[in-house]
Amino acid sequence: MKQAPITFDVIATSGNARAGFLRTRRGVIETPVFMPVGTAGTVKGIRFEELESPDLDPKIILGNTYHLWLRPGIETIRACGGLHKFIGWDRALLTDSGGFQVWSLGALRKITEEGTEFRSHVDGSLCFLSPEVSMDVQVALGSEIAMAFDECAPGQADFEEAAKSIALTARWAARSRAKFDELQLSGADSGRTEPLERISGAQALFGIVQGAGHLQLRKESLDRTVEIGFDGYAIGGLSVGEEKNVMFEMISATALNLPVNQPRYLMGVGTPEDLVEAVAEGVDMFDCVLPTRNGRNGQAFTSQGRINIKNSRWTTDSQPLDPACECAVCRRHSRAYLRHLYLSGEMLSSILLTHHNLAFFLDTMRRVRQSIRSGDFPKFRREFIGSLSSNENGA
Amino acid sequence: MKQAPITFDVIATSGNARAGFLRTRRGVIETPVFMPVGTAGTVKGIRFEELESPDLDPKIILGNTYHLWLRPGIETIRACGGLHKFIGWDRALLTDSGGFQVWSLGALRKITEEGTEFRSHVDGSLCFLSPEVSMDVQVALGSEIAMAFDECAPGQADFEEAAKSIALTARWAARSRAKFDELQLSGADSGRTEPLERISGAQALFGIVQGAGHLQLRKESLDRTVEIGFDGYAIGGLSVGEEKNVMFEMISATALNLPVNQPRYLMGVGTPEDLVEAVAEGVDMFDCVLPTRNGRNGQAFTSQGRINIKNSRWTTDSQPLDPACECAVCRRHSRAYLRHLYLSGEMLSSILLTHHNLAFFLDTMRRVRQSIRSGDFPKFRREFIGSLSSNENGA
Repeated sequence: MKQAPITFDVIATSGNARAGFLRTRRGVIETPVFMPVGTAGTVKGIRFEELESPDLDPKIILGNTYHLWLRPGIETIRACGGLHKFIGWDRALLTDSGGFQVWSLGALRKITEEGTEFRSHVDGSLCFLSPEVSMDVQVALGSEIAMAFDECAPGQADFEEAAKSIALTARWAARSRAKFDELQLSGADSGRTEPLERISGAQALFGIVQGAGHLQLRKESLDRTVEIGFDGYAIGGLSVGEEKNVMFEMISATALNLPVNQPRYLMGVGTPEDLVEAVAEGVDMFDCVLPTRNGRNGQAFTSQGRINIKNSRWTTDSQPLDPACECAVCRRHSRAYLRHLYLSGEMLSSILLTHHNLAFFLDTMRRVRQSIRSGDFPKFRREFIGSLSSNENGA
Repeated sequence: MKQAPITFDVIATSGNARAGFLRTRRGVIETPVFMPVGTAGTVKGIRFEELESPDLDPKIILGNTYHLWLRPGIETIRACGGLHKFIGWDRALLTDSGGFQVWSLGALRKITEEGTEFRSHVDGSLCFLSPEVSMDVQVALGSEIAMAFDECAPGQADFEEAAKSIALTARWAARSRAKFDELQLSGADSGRTEPLERISGAQALFGIVQGAGHLQLRKESLDRTVEIGFDGYAIGGLSVGEEKNVMFEMISATALNLPVNQPRYLMGVGTPEDLVEAVAEGVDMFDCVLPTRNGRNGQAFTSQGRINIKNSRWTTDSQPLDPACECAVCRRHSRAYLRHLYLSGEMLSSILLTHHNLAFFLDTMRRVRQSIRSGDFPKFRREFIGSLSSNENGA
């Protein structure tokens, strides 16, 4: 049997939703999966021991090519044996391409056919990122899944702008594929492992579908990306300013047209309700900074909606953040204490809210998977979405 | 047998150093002991689960009366059932009196016979702290050990200034004792427990010896404090600007004259070498912000001296902070990664360096206790101090 960088097996479906196993050279990932974001080689505020604890236990996290390339720099990470060894994490990693981060710099960057020129947010120096550089970096990082270098259009880009963007993305995807394959042959992948059953030990590469809010362009981008051929496919350029209904229209039209036997990854999305709704459209993988970033800003995601821990109504509230949650934070600490920590500027506030939020996102996905397997996904979806809106007065 | 708030039994001595058991209503503390500082109800950057793990495992931590009184305020903590319940910690707590924090405000405070007037660092409001207020607050916090409200003189105070200060401290100590006893009788102590063997379930109160750098005043302050009668005695007003040799002269002269059957607590001191040297002078208890504060600032304490993690020599160093250390940080992470986290401003830098530093301080005290019990303290002391200076080039 031919060995591949990853394998993907769907084991249950419910409507368009599907539950499966994504096998990588560093572990098996049950899908649908939420991947915590570890921008600069750390999921902000969370120790790796906590990540590995049953409360959280993600089998894969993200690293950001843009951030790690600028600091500590790829020579340092290579000298330290790749990203896994550098950060002390031996489970799976997915690295983005840096395209989205550079695009986020807005006026500070200049895009040409060759790539993107920009000023480093670290030291102001002039930098240049291209498909080839991105592949160089991601192969040196040695992630299990690398992403093609893409160009993202604004959420409300008009047809012409978005059409130019997907054409450039397609040319960059082909260059990403070529450079990536060359690097794999050269042995530059620092995460390489011995072959396992059905698994080659090499790195996987995902393509990215763009097209802003234009169905026709999404379709065209999908065709061009699939034609090049990747180990999995991502839907990019969403949750970047477009209306929510447009976002779901694009997800729906794209996900179902992607190859059925490969994983589908919706990049940078979203709220707990977004995740559940996108699963219903056939998406398998997600990442988002919401649980970590909002946790640092004092916002908790709960089964009854969001809580703003700064709210004075929690001053002497001895209840946990979410009475329905069994995470370590909810087992031990009250809203009153968490509010005090936040108002006092204590680091523990970020640590504990981040932990709870990640526990909520990861547990939600566990329940999503379970409900797809048991055939109860429509019921789970209805009850989950209904419950979320029951406590919005605490937000 | 008469029941007391705490009991203290010396089980081994080596010269003036002594190893013992300090029994409180919330657990037994082996001495000599280092108490991590939990200023605002959290040991900064460390989750309680980590504190309770074998790496750290302190049986007692500090809370700061000044900080907790100002925020969240005593009404909130009382409504939440006392400090233990509020923060989610059921081991022993020691609260300071707030005297030192107010003294640290310098020109922002005004001292009278009645107490100290100052402006809150939280909201600028005018506040007044006195022996009576401090006792009110500490009893509401419900710590196992409360401290008398004292007045601290600068490290280089002249005889006259220091003499005035110890006289005021003595009058405040008497007022602290009276108010504290009255509050205990009234049932205001929120940490009260059922009586245990030899333990009454009530809160303990320690007196504080002052006197700046003047032996005669230290002696006089000691006599006046012991005359009032407390459950234990602290040496205050050291490590506040005086020379190191003066500090040790004061410790030496004071510790040995304190009641032999009660615990001796050196407040706010110090470096690992300070702790070992003060144990040799007969001190039993310590607290200091050094491991936590310096950890946040990128400094690691190791068996070979201090390391400044910012130093570029660690850029690709794959060794742990301290190859002789077995803490979770040293088992998992390299100096190169920790340097990257620090330079990237990642919270995990503070979390991990604080963890390691606390592990080093607490493990040092474990080894101090063991060496006193086995009769090897002089050898341990000599080797420990010698080893500390072997790597100062990394500082």
